Amino acid sequence: MSTRTGFPRTVARTFVQRFIRALIQVQIHGEIHAFIQGACMRPSVTAFEVHDIRFPTSERLDGSDAMNPDPDYSAAYVVLRTEDGHEGHGFVFTIGRGNEVTAAAIEALRPYVVGRPVPVGAADLAALHHDLTHDSQLRWLGPEKGVIHMAAGAVVNAAWDLAATIAGLPVWEFLAAMTPEELVSLVDFRYLTDVLTRQEALAILRAAEPGRAERARLLRAEGYPAYTTSPGWLGYDDDKLVRLAKEAVADGFAQIKLKVGADLDDDVRRLGLARAAVGPGIRIAVDANQRWDVPDAIRWMAALAPYQPHWIEEPTSPDDILGHAAVRAGQPVKVATGEHAANRVVFKQLLQAGAVDFVQIDAARVAGVNENLAILLLAAKYGVPVCPHAGGVGLCELVQHLAMFDFVAVSASREDRVIEYVDHLHEHFVTPAVVEAGRYRAPTAPGFSARMHPASIAAHRYPDGPLWRARRPAQEVAS
Amino acid sequence: MSTRTGFPRTVARTFVQRFIRALIQVQIHGEIHAFIQGACMRPSVTAFEVHDIRFPTSERLDGSDAMNPDPDYSAAYVVLRTEDGHEGHGFVFTIGRGNEVTAAAIEALRPYVVGRPVPVGAADLAALHHDLTHDSQLRWLGPEKGVIHMAAGAVVNAAWDLAATIAGLPVWEFLAAMTPEELVSLVDFRYLTDVLTRQEALAILRAAEPGRAERARLLRAEGYPAYTTSPGWLGYDDDKLVRLAKEAVADGFAQIKLKVGADLDDDVRRLGLARAAVGPGIRIAVDANQRWDVPDAIRWMAALAPYQPHWIEEPTSPDDILGHAAVRAGQPVKVATGEHAANRVVFKQLLQAGAVDFVQIDAARVAGVNENLAILLLAAKYGVPVCPHAGGVGLCELVQHLAMFDFVAVSASREDRVIEYVDHLHEHFVTPAVVEAGRYRAPTAPGFSARMHPASIAAHRYPDGPLWRARRPAQEVAS
Repeated sequence: MSTRTGFPRTVARTFVQRFIRALIQVQIHGEIHAFIQGACMRPSVTAFEVHDIRFPTSERLDGSDAMNPDPDYSAAYVVLRTEDGHEGHGFVFTIGRGNEVTAAAIEALRPYVVGRPVPVGAADLAALHHDLTHDSQLRWLGPEKGVIHMAAGAVVNAAWDLAATIAGLPVWEFLAAMTPEELVSLVDFRYLTDVLTRQEALAILRAAEPGRAERARLLRAEGYPAYTTSPGWLGYDDDKLVRLAKEAVADGFAQIKLKVGADLDDDVRRLGLARAAVGPGIRIAVDANQRWDVPDAIRWMAALAPYQPHWIEEPTSPDDILGHAAVRAGQPVKVATGEHAANRVVFKQLLQAGAVDFVQIDAARVAGVNENLAILLLAAKYGVPVCPHAGGVGLCELVQHLAMFDFVAVSASREDRVIEYVDHLHEHFVTPAVVEAGRYRAPTAPGFSARMHPASIAAHRYPDGPLWRARRPAQEVAS
Repeated sequence: MSTRTGFPRTVARTFVQRFIRALIQVQIHGEIHAFIQGACMRPSVTAFEVHDIRFPTSERLDGSDAMNPDPDYSAAYVVLRTEDGHEGHGFVFTIGRGNEVTAAAIEALRPYVVGRPVPVGAADLAALHHDLTHDSQLRWLGPEKGVIHMAAGAVVNAAWDLAATIAGLPVWEFLAAMTPEELVSLVDFRYLTDVLTRQEALAILRAAEPGRAERARLLRAEGYPAYTTSPGWLGYDDDKLVRLAKEAVADGFAQIKLKVGADLDDDVRRLGLARAAVGPGIRIAVDANQRWDVPDAIRWMAALAPYQPHWIEEPTSPDDILGHAAVRAGQPVKVATGEHAANRVVFKQLLQAGAVDFVQIDAARVAGVNENLAILLLAAKYGVPVCPHAGGVGLCELVQHLAMFDFVAVSASREDRVIEYVDHLHEHFVTPAVVEAGRYRAPTAPGFSARMHPASIAAHRYPDGPLWRARRPAQEVAS
């Protein structure tokens, strides 16, 4: 059949139907189209480079503790590059073997990043964090813990480095320039709302809005208190311990930290020596690196308590929320933990259970800045001070930004707060953390202070970098 | 200088010194020498093959739930081969993307296995489990959670498959033939002793010694109760749900399970349809697959309670011990969880906190048989029934052995206990699990029932197997 014009009726009907459908689509998808148009005007992430970088630190017993006798400080390192020439750097810190597994996990996230418009603000960084932690198939590998979660953290942190660099601000100032609404939009509240809702988080951030500028000024003028772990590695002999403890005090540190947990008699002697070396006015924290069962921790800390340790760190399994609560209740020394807490759900419970006196965030174990923001908010709700874990390679560089942002815009306090400092491997970073007179200086360079020198990356690539090629025969033997 | 015989004095002295030193060494290291001699007479593990195997199950929505809408059931699969021709098979179950990361983690464990004397008994299997979970550098990637821990589980389970095969027994009988002393030697009690000491575990196992033979006879005669999840996948329509629920009852199942958590109205309708289809005498468990926050879980289950669900499974984050306790206290339906609990420390706390009515072990998420033995002992101490999680690919095959061993030698009970069954992918296994009239038949073939047909492995290798090569263009697009 045909219409009068000789045009087949079915064709005419199809044409009208298509026209109407197209009109509806334009209406419905208007927002999406506008978004795509906006995105298309932005450059994209075009490269995603993953490096397995390892430092042979085990050769000198730097970093030795009761659980980690011979770490080779390592980084599964990712570089994002944009088509307009910007870079974002991030990494997972590990201690050697298995760094290639973490690198493979970062690699698995490539499809979420390459081709994506360059993230520039809170909305982009929230979306990226969501995509990286909510892939339903990859999630099975955690969920939200271990290798796949740390990998997401590396990529999220690289995106923050990129966005802050483009904004021309160090990450702590980039975060502190965001509104409370933008900040809560960055947080995944799933599994938190029995303890912290979006509204409560917003109230915490709004309460800290007055005074942001003044606290930022204070940071630029005075920095943020640091403590040093450099004297206290378990592999160091008594003379080195005493010498380094005295040097730390002379350098202006008001707190040092000793590793404990391998042998009680040794620990009593070492803590006694350190206390004698630094005097009663210096805080000495002790760190068991998960060595004990709950009854051991209580017995051990009762023996060390006379030397007034400031806190006992990681007395037992990082998964043992009820265990930490029992240790806290069972002996007089305050409890700190968190560097190995897998995610915000574990931190939530540590706070709910009254298990910790200090929350020790780590910049590279949870899913990056976004999840650490959730943890800062949880700690603020409970009024528990955040004292970040650092050391390893690059952790001081990253975490200083989070602590300073916490002071400016979340807890609004530096009281009882202190960032760990270890004087290792900073020379490999383009803008290393600077600690003077026992305080972190506020970073001024744009970004997350996360970038290693290209020559350091090239030299320490495993197993093909020159440093490791030279060592290969010894390293190939399984330990 | 020379002695009178013309023999240089220093040479003579050196000779005597060496002789004395050797005597002392023989004395000190007698045990080690005996061990090495024993070991040298045993064949070694000579090959360690790792395969990335994936099934395109997402194409049919089998296995779809509120958190996992499109799983591609996968296995990071390991085969150990000995110089005398034996094999041990093990695997990590995943749901697709990232299976290559888990395969890389298994690969990282190779140095602990290749060249090792073939494990044949409790002492060897204890030592292997210890070595795989205590590498101080690899431990950083967990600790004891996520990809690296699941990888250790795959290798441990492969070693059990190997040892039981050599012994000519199915794993459940191989375990049930061990003494209480041998069984506790397999367990890593670190982080458990505040709740379960070696002595307490020994007492539990000794109390269950009488009657082992009779219970094994009962298993061979009657099997072990199963329930089926096959009717309840979220991707199935109402008609399919009702039809499959009726079929399940006709097939002899006394319990079925439905996936819930995506939409409350849908869940009320689906649960109502299922209850009408099966009648009041059949248990219907529901499974939220971690979809909810605590307040959501309580609200949702209050709405579903009128249909008498048997349990609510995984109402919230698997890390949220206190959250599960709150859900259990806040609504009338019993709580089950565990398939995603990372390790024995999490199970310990779920029991301590009174958070669960049913403990759902998974055969391939924790560090293999050894850690699951710890979990069975913890559950027995608290008198909480163990109802294993299964499904996926190969999980039914593995976990039946653990439940049956639990009945013979640990809890000594089948009351309120049931093993999940899903009728997918069994055709790929050499000795698949057999469920008849709603009961698992006791396996009789030596080993862990873990072996896939070589043709299935070859066909499903990712990305190079023929099945995936044919699909490549579609799969390369990031979802």
